[in-house]
Amino acid sequence: MSQPRASNSLAEAVKEHMLRDDAFSKLLGLEIDEIGAGYCRLHFTVRPDMLNGFRVLHGGVTFSAADSAFAFACNSHGRQSVGLTVTIDYLEAGELGDVITMEAQEESLKHKISVYQIRATNQHGNLLALFKGTAYRTSNEILSLPNQ
Amino acid sequence: MSQPRASNSLAEAVKEHMLRDDAFSKLLGLEIDEIGAGYCRLHFTVRPDMLNGFRVLHGGVTFSAADSAFAFACNSHGRQSVGLTVTIDYLEAGELGDVITMEAQEESLKHKISVYQIRATNQHGNLLALFKGTAYRTSNEILSLPNQ
Amino acid sequence: MSQPRASNSLAEAVKEHMLRDDAFSKLLGLEIDEIGAGYCRLHFTVRPDMLNGFRVLHGGVTFSAADSAFAFACNSHGRQSVGLTVTIDYLEAGELGDVITMEAQEESLKHKISVYQIRATNQHGNLLALFKGTAYRTSNEILSLPNQ
Amino acid sequence: MSQPRASNSLAEAVKEHMLRDDAFSKLLGLEIDEIGAGYCRLHFTVRPDMLNGFRVLHGGVTFSAADSAFAFACNSHGRQSVGLTVTIDYLEAGELGDVITMEAQEESLKHKISVYQIRATNQHGNLLALFKGTAYRTSNEILSLPNQ
Repeated sequence: MSQPRASNSLAEAVKEHMLRDDAFSKLLGLEIDEIGAGYCRLHFTVRPDMLNGFRVLHGGVTFSAADSAFAFACNSHGRQSVGLTVTIDYLEAGELGDVITMEAQEESLKHKISVYQIRATNQHGNLLALFKGTAYRTSNEILSLPNQ
Repeated sequence: MSQPRASNSLAEAVKEHMLRDDAFSKLLGLEIDEIGAGYCRLHFTVRPDMLNGFRVLHGGVTFSAADSAFAFACNSHGRQSVGLTVTIDYLEAGELGDVITMEAQEESLKHKISVYQIRATNQHGNLLALFKGTAYRTSNEILSLPNQ
Repeated sequence: MSQPRASNSLAEAVKEHMLRDDAFSKLLGLEIDEIGAGYCRLHFTVRPDMLNGFRVLHGGVTFSAADSAFAFACNSHGRQSVGLTVTIDYLEAGELGDVITMEAQEESLKHKISVYQIRATNQHGNLLALFKGTAYRTSNEILSLPNQ
Repeated sequence: MSQPRASNSLAEAVKEHMLRDDAFSKLLGLEIDEIGAGYCRLHFTVRPDMLNGFRVLHGGVTFSAADSAFAFACNSHGRQSVGLTVTIDYLEAGELGDVITMEAQEESLKHKISVYQIRATNQHGNLLALFKGTAYRTSNEILSLPNQ
C-alpha cells in the first residue's frame, strides 16, 4: 500500500478548489488533517443529527465522510476524477460524540482508473468500516475548470 | 426479483418506530412513498447543501438515501437488521433540483442474512445509481425494543 | 433493465472470436445459449472436480461462469472491454450435478464504462448468486485484433 | 491489519481437513505456503488452460485462487464459515507463466461475521488484484464434521 506522503502544493491547491463549493462536506463538519498525492486524512465528530432510527451513527454519514476522503485523494493529482463504484463494510457502529477519522490510501493509479482504500477508525483506534473506491480519471485539469 | 407488495401493517409499524428517531433521514428530507414486506420506495429533492465540490450531487447523499431505503426494507419483517456490506455504482450524476426516487427490492431472505437491490432514478426515469446491500438479521424484535 | 435482444451478427462474431481461445471457459464446460447486444445467457453442469472442501460447488466456479457471461455481454458491442471491479453475493450453494444458468443483462452503457448484472440460477429456478460487474471499454475493435 | 501469525496446529488441521476434498483448488494447482489464525498465503502458476479469449489470465482463476485463500483464512479458527459476499478489483492482467501469490489477512473477526482482504501479486511484486470477502461463521466445528 502506498505510504502517506507529505502534503504537496498541487494536492493542497486542488483541495482548496474543491472545498470552496463542497456544501455537503461542510454540512457534515469534515475537517481535513492532511492531504498529499493520492492521500487524504480527515475527521469529524458524530452529532445528534447524524444518528439513525436505532440511535447509532447512520451508515450514510460514515459513507459520506469516507467518500469525501476518497474524492480528495483521487483528485489530488490534478485530473478531475469521478467515483465509479464503491464498496463499504460496516464492522462496528459509530456512536454519538465519537471522533471518526478517515484515512484514504492509493492502491493503484493507472492512466484512466485509480483505486483507493479508506479506513474509518474511532478515537479509540477501533476499525469501524472499510471503504474501497474506484475512480475514472477524466482529462480535465481541475485547476483549469471555470469558476462557477 | 420480489415484487413490491402492498404496504402492510407490520412494515408500517416498524417504519414509524424507526422514523421517530431517524435524525439523518430527516436532515436529508427523505419522504417515504410506499413500504411493504421487503420493499421500500422513497424520494427526496436535491438541495444546494447536498452538492459536492464539482457542484453536482455528493455521492454520499445518493448513498445515504439508498441506505435508508435499504434499512426500511430489511427491517420491514420486524427483526432488527444491520447492514454488513454495501456496493454502489454511480451511473449518472444527480443535479440541483432533481427529484430522486429510491426503490428497494428484496433479492433474498434467509434466516440470518438478507440481500436487497436499490435503484436510484431521477424525475426523467434515468437510472443514476445501483445499490446492493447485505444485512445481518439479529433476533431482536424491533417493536419490542425499549423506547430511548 | 435492458431486455434480452435477439442474437445479432456482431455479438455472434465477437463471441466466436473470443471463444476460439478461451481455454478456461472450455475447461469449465460453459455452453452459450444466447448472445446479443449487451446480453448473454450460458449454462454449465457441476462436476466433481468443481467442488470445494465442504463438497459443495466452489465459489470460484460460480464466479468464473458469471465472469465469462459478463465478458461476452460487455464485449458484444465490438469494443474490447476489460473488467474493472466485480461484486458477487452467494445466496445458496450449488451442488454436484446442478445445471446452473448465468444470465447477463446490461444496466448501463456509457462511452468508456459499462455495468452488468448476472443472475445465477439452478435447474429449479432458485437464485444461487448475484454478480455485478463494471467494465472499461477500450477503443480496440475486437474483430480487428490480430490473430494470435 | 492483523499481522500474519505463525502457522498453528488448529489452522493446520483445518486446512488438512478442507484440502482433502477440495477438488477445484487441486485443479488450479494451488500450493499453500503458510497458514495461521486468520491468515493464509498460497501461490499458483498460470497455465495455458487458465487463459481467456484475449490470451491473458481469466479473471475467474484469479478470483478462485483468492477465494480459496479467503476460505482457508476464515475457517482457520475452526468454525465452519461460508462466504457471503466478495468484491474483486482487477488492476493488472496476469500472464502465462506468472507465479501469483495470494495473501489473505483478517480485517475483522466478530461472533458471526468476519472480513478478509486478499492481495494478489505476481513474481515481480506487482499488485494484480484486490479481493475483499465477508464470511458468515456457522456454529459447526469443522474438525467434528462427519467424513464424507
